[in-house]
This record gives sequence, C-alpha cells and structure tokens, in this order.
Amino acid sequence: MNETIKHYDTVDFSGDGNALAIIDQTKLPGELIILELDTAESIWEAIHNLRVRGAPAIGVAAAIGIAVLMKKSEAKEVSEFDREFNEYKDYLETSRPTAVNLFWALEEMKKVLDRQDLAGVPERKTALIRRAKELREEDIDVCKRIGEYGLTLLKEGDGILTHCNAGSLATVKYGTATSPMYLAHEKGMKIHVFADETRPLLQGARLTAFELHNAGIDTTLICDNMSQTVMRNGWVNIVFVGCDRVALNGDACNKIGTSMVALAAKRNGVPFYVCAPTSTIDFETKTGEEIEIEERKPEEVTEMWYREPMAPNGVKVYNPAFDVTDHDLITGIITEYGILRPPYQEALEKLRDQIRSRE
Amino acid sequence: MNETIKHYDTVDFSGDGNALAIIDQTKLPGELIILELDTAESIWEAIHNLRVRGAPAIGVAAAIGIAVLMKKSEAKEVSEFDREFNEYKDYLETSRPTAVNLFWALEEMKKVLDRQDLAGVPERKTALIRRAKELREEDIDVCKRIGEYGLTLLKEGDGILTHCNAGSLATVKYGTATSPMYLAHEKGMKIHVFADETRPLLQGARLTAFELHNAGIDTTLICDNMSQTVMRNGWVNIVFVGCDRVALNGDACNKIGTSMVALAAKRNGVPFYVCAPTSTIDFETKTGEEIEIEERKPEEVTEMWYREPMAPNGVKVYNPAFDVTDHDLITGIITEYGILRPPYQEALEKLRDQIRSRE
Repeated sequence: MNETIKHYDTVDFSGDGNALAIIDQTKLPGELIILELDTAESIWEAIHNLRVRGAPAIGVAAAIGIAVLMKKSEAKEVSEFDREFNEYKDYLETSRPTAVNLFWALEEMKKVLDRQDLAGVPERKTALIRRAKELREEDIDVCKRIGEYGLTLLKEGDGILTHCNAGSLATVKYGTATSPMYLAHEKGMKIHVFADETRPLLQGARLTAFELHNAGIDTTLICDNMSQTVMRNGWVNIVFVGCDRVALNGDACNKIGTSMVALAAKRNGVPFYVCAPTSTIDFETKTGEEIEIEERKPEEVTEMWYREPMAPNGVKVYNPAFDVTDHDLITGIITEYGILRPPYQEALEKLRDQIRSRE
Repeated sequence: MNETIKHYDTVDFSGDGNALAIIDQTKLPGELIILELDTAESIWEAIHNLRVRGAPAIGVAAAIGIAVLMKKSEAKEVSEFDREFNEYKDYLETSRPTAVNLFWALEEMKKVLDRQDLAGVPERKTALIRRAKELREEDIDVCKRIGEYGLTLLKEGDGILTHCNAGSLATVKYGTATSPMYLAHEKGMKIHVFADETRPLLQGARLTAFELHNAGIDTTLICDNMSQTVMRNGWVNIVFVGCDRVALNGDACNKIGTSMVALAAKRNGVPFYVCAPTSTIDFETKTGEEIEIEERKPEEVTEMWYREPMAPNGVKVYNPAFDVTDHDLITGIITEYGILRPPYQEALEKLRDQIRSRE
C-alpha cells in the first residue's frame, strides 16, 4: 500500500495502471491521502471500511480493483483465469453486502468473460481493463451531463444550497448535486455554496465542504437547522440535492433532513432540484410511502465524533438514515437525459419507455 | 465550594440557607453535581462560565447569591451595609453583561434597600433573603401556570416534540416548554417526548434529554433534521418550544432551527405552541423582521465537542444563534395568563393593557 498525494479524482487506475487509486475518505477533512491498492485484501478493506463510499464510486472501485488483480494473474489457461476471477468476485462482494452498485459493477465485469471473441488470457486481461475504464468514463459522463443540465439553471452570482454529499467524492468525478457547481466554477462563474453539515455523520461538513473548498469554490458551512434562515436571508437562489431512490410519482428518498430543506425552500420560493442519475430511479416503486427507511445505531447520534458524553446514558435515540421528500416540494428532477418537470409520473414513464426502447 | 448531589432544583438556597445551590450544567449530562457557592468570586464564576444558564435561572441565582453574601456581612451601619451591597451588585453584573435578567434581578434586590421601614442591618438581611425567595417562587409560579395551560392541550398517550432547552434547567423548576410535560408526568399521564439535539451547542441532547430522562419521562433524542420524519411517521401530537422574544404580531424568536420545526409541524398538521412568559414578550417590537439575530463563532460548528477535525481548515461558517418563526406557523402562544390565539397583535395588545392596568 503506497500512500502519496497525486491527484483529486475519487477513483482511478494508478499512474502505472497496476493498482486501484482512491482518495481515503476516512482521513478527510484532516488529510488528503491517495491509496494505491493492488491486493484483494487491501481493496476489500478499503470498501468495507468506507475509505471509498458513495454508490457510483464503490462500483467503479470494484471494477478497477478486479481488473488490476486479474492483470497480475499468472494463470496460463482461460479456465484457470476465469476461476480466479470468480474467486475475487465472490470475495469482493462480501466487502459491503448492501451496496447494490458493487454487485452490479462486478456483474458487468463478469459479462466480459462471457464474450466468445476473447480466446486467450492476454485478451481477457485487456478486455477487463477496457471495461473498467468504460464504467469509469460512463460514470463521469452521467455526472457531467447532469451538471450541464443543472448549469442551465444557474446565473452569475447565485447562492446554492446542498445537503449531505452527492459530490465528487461519492462518484468518480463531478458528483451529481455538485456537478452544476463544478461546471459553473470551471466556466469562471461566481457562485456561492451553502453546505449543510448533515448530522449525524457530518458528510456535508467533512466531505462536501472539503471538496468544494478544495476546488476553490466559495463555500459556507452551516448546521442543518440553519437552512431556513439562510434562505429567509435571501442568500439562496437554488437548491441541488442528490438522491438514493426516486419513486414513479417523483417522491425522492435521500439523506435524512432533505425533506426539511425542501420545506424551507418552498416557504421561501427557492427552486428545489433533485439530481438523479437514471440508475437511482425505481420505476417499480409507486410512491415514497413504499420506501423502507434504514434505521442506524444510536451511537452515531450520541457519541460518534465526541470528546465527552453528549447525551444522557440510556436515553432512547431514533436515527433514520434517510427521508422522503414529497414530489410536490420538488421543482425538477435532473437526470443525464434532461430535467423532468411535474407531473412526474408522466415524465418518468416517458423516460422509462425511452430507456427500454434503447436497450 | 462544596460538591454534593442533593436535589434537582436548578437554583435554590443551600439546605442551611448560607449558600447559593445550583446544578453545575457544564458537567451535564455526564455528572449531576450540585455546587454550593458562598463567595462572590465563586458566584461570579458560575454565572460567567455558564454553570447556571437560562435567563430566569441566572436572574434568580444572582438574587439568591447577593442575599447570601449580604447575610454574612459584618457591617454594623446601614450605610456600610448598603455600600457593600452595591459593590457586590456591580461585581456580579460583570459576570454576564448580555443577560438582561441578571440586571433585572439585582435591581429588584436593590429596591429592597430603598424601603423606609428597614432601619437596621438585621432587618435588611432578612428582607433581602425574603425577596430572593419571592423571586424564586415567582419564577416557579410563572412556569407552573404555563404548564397548567399547556396541560389542557395534552391527552393520554400524546407524543410531544421540543427543540433546544426551554426546560427546568433554564429556570428554577418546571421550565417553560417542558412544564406541561412535567405536570402531565406528575399526574401519571403517559406521554412520549422527542427532543431535538439542537446543533451546534447540543442543548437538547445535553440538557433537555438529560432532565426529562432523569425525571422518568419517556424521551427519544433525535437530530434536528429528523423532526419532519418523526412527525410524518405520525408520532407527534403537539410541539412545545420556548422563546427568547415575541414580537407584537406574534413572530417568535427562539433557538436556531425552531422555524424549521414549525414548517414541519404545519406540513404534518401538528399544532405548534410557543411557551412565552410575559417577560419575553416585547410589546415595542412590531415584527420578527426587527429582531437582530446574534451570530456566534464558527468554532462552535467546526470543532467544539469533537475529537477530530470535522470541517476543512479555513472554510467559512455561518452560525446564527436564533431564528424567527413567523406568526402564521404558530398555533398558540402560552403565557402565564393563558393561551393566546391569532390574530396575535389583537391578543397581545389586550394582554399588554391588562398587565399595565395592574401595575
């Protein structure tokens, strides 16, 4: 494991192409460390311990990871090579059993080995690396397209508010909610971003504020309970948030607290946009009511991060990880195919049919 | 300074009447320590370092403090006694120069010395102690009356949500927003309280959750960004919050985040009540727009409480201590004279005239 500070992409091949390179997110915002991982154990550990996190970033990390592991394979026969691949795949899948993108990406990599035209081990090695690069490029492309649609909503001097980290650090590059911000900044537009700290895990403070500030974007950190005040002060022109799942009626499930930002935005006449790659749209779920909310452990609220006890011993804690923002609070849903407007069910069904006709 | 665990009133005379007894709030929720203070320096230090906090509690602490200091006076002449009183008063006023109740309470104590019937030093000592006891009892009485009006809004099995600490620990006893909860609990009613942790200073987690849990009230701690979810789940029947200042149109200034709780309550059809002793009603301020919001230092958000850096070095922080909840989001304002209903300006002007005609 080789630790150097080299570049700022969240997930990539190392310079020599022999390792998976990731930003170690557990060290942020204190230190920016790039890990170069070239063993199955170190890749497993990095995913398991959230050194790389965010659904798209995890998927691409697993794809690059298995490609570099197979590049080093000493197998002579295709059958031995494929057996080795399957062993790594099974092993890496245990690193974070709830991460859908992890399974999806490894399955995409496996499809390469099903191709009839790859007769020998060298061809298979090359094809795996090519496919991992493609998955990486596709993720960058989806984020960039969301950013370009989002950018059409921005104007010089805008104040933007975001919640949690739907940022570059959750994807390969650009992020989803942050993508319009990076593109605006690249074009030299003056923008100002308010980042909610996002209790209990503080992804907004530790990750979003870090990556935006680091990129030179004018960023102000606030506590979650201040977003209404910031909007009331007239400082926010638009809200961009990410999402974990969008239901067919447009209800959006995202990090806990998102729905309160949406209420404050509605109250203050601030447009509220959900940035949603089509991979997060769940055409089978009719409304947000059907989405089950993950509950996490009390210690995240009562003691994680703290020097001293911050709550009385034994008090109950409710710690839902996500909430649902009702579709009537959402101004638009930005996908890589464009900005959807209400009524969302109609717009989403049309998008679904377009995607299916392309497959 | 004598440290013992004896009782749970926030501010009182010590058992022998020779000292000011307070709960050391800087040690909560880890330890419950009662301080018995009988020197001017220790009383000054306790107010200065927030060992006692909350406007009503500070006022009563200063009154009891100066009464016990004067009880020990060795002055023979009234003029010497009064000079000593004024020295202590001037000194104690420097302990927390922005605490209006501190000045008010010491002024009330001084009025005792203006009375013509207290000819000798012993009479003056007795009268000061009597007045401090009266101020303490008045505070308990105001809180209890607010609690009794609030109690009429509760029914068996109710879920109640509160924000910050408008609790027993901010007053002598009962608190304001918590008073209906304590009275319901005393009557054996089953209630369940959700306490917002209240970033950045965590008064909800450290103080409200502590005092309610300690009193045997079923309490669940949540992060501020979860109140909308808890209400959406149907778990909350009513919200009680305290306030720092109510304007003539009913706009209420309270701890940052209160207005977001009000938005969530409105969205979910949950009644939202502000508990406001008439001492917090500012009949001279027309609307919330006129109230200036205190901004506090960034470190409260970025590093206080934390083991490790929680935000990138040098990022901007906005840290308003309070926000304004618009009157249209408030179901009622509970004072010690009854529950005010909209239109608030009419109700408040009537209350003002009643109070003035009594003076």
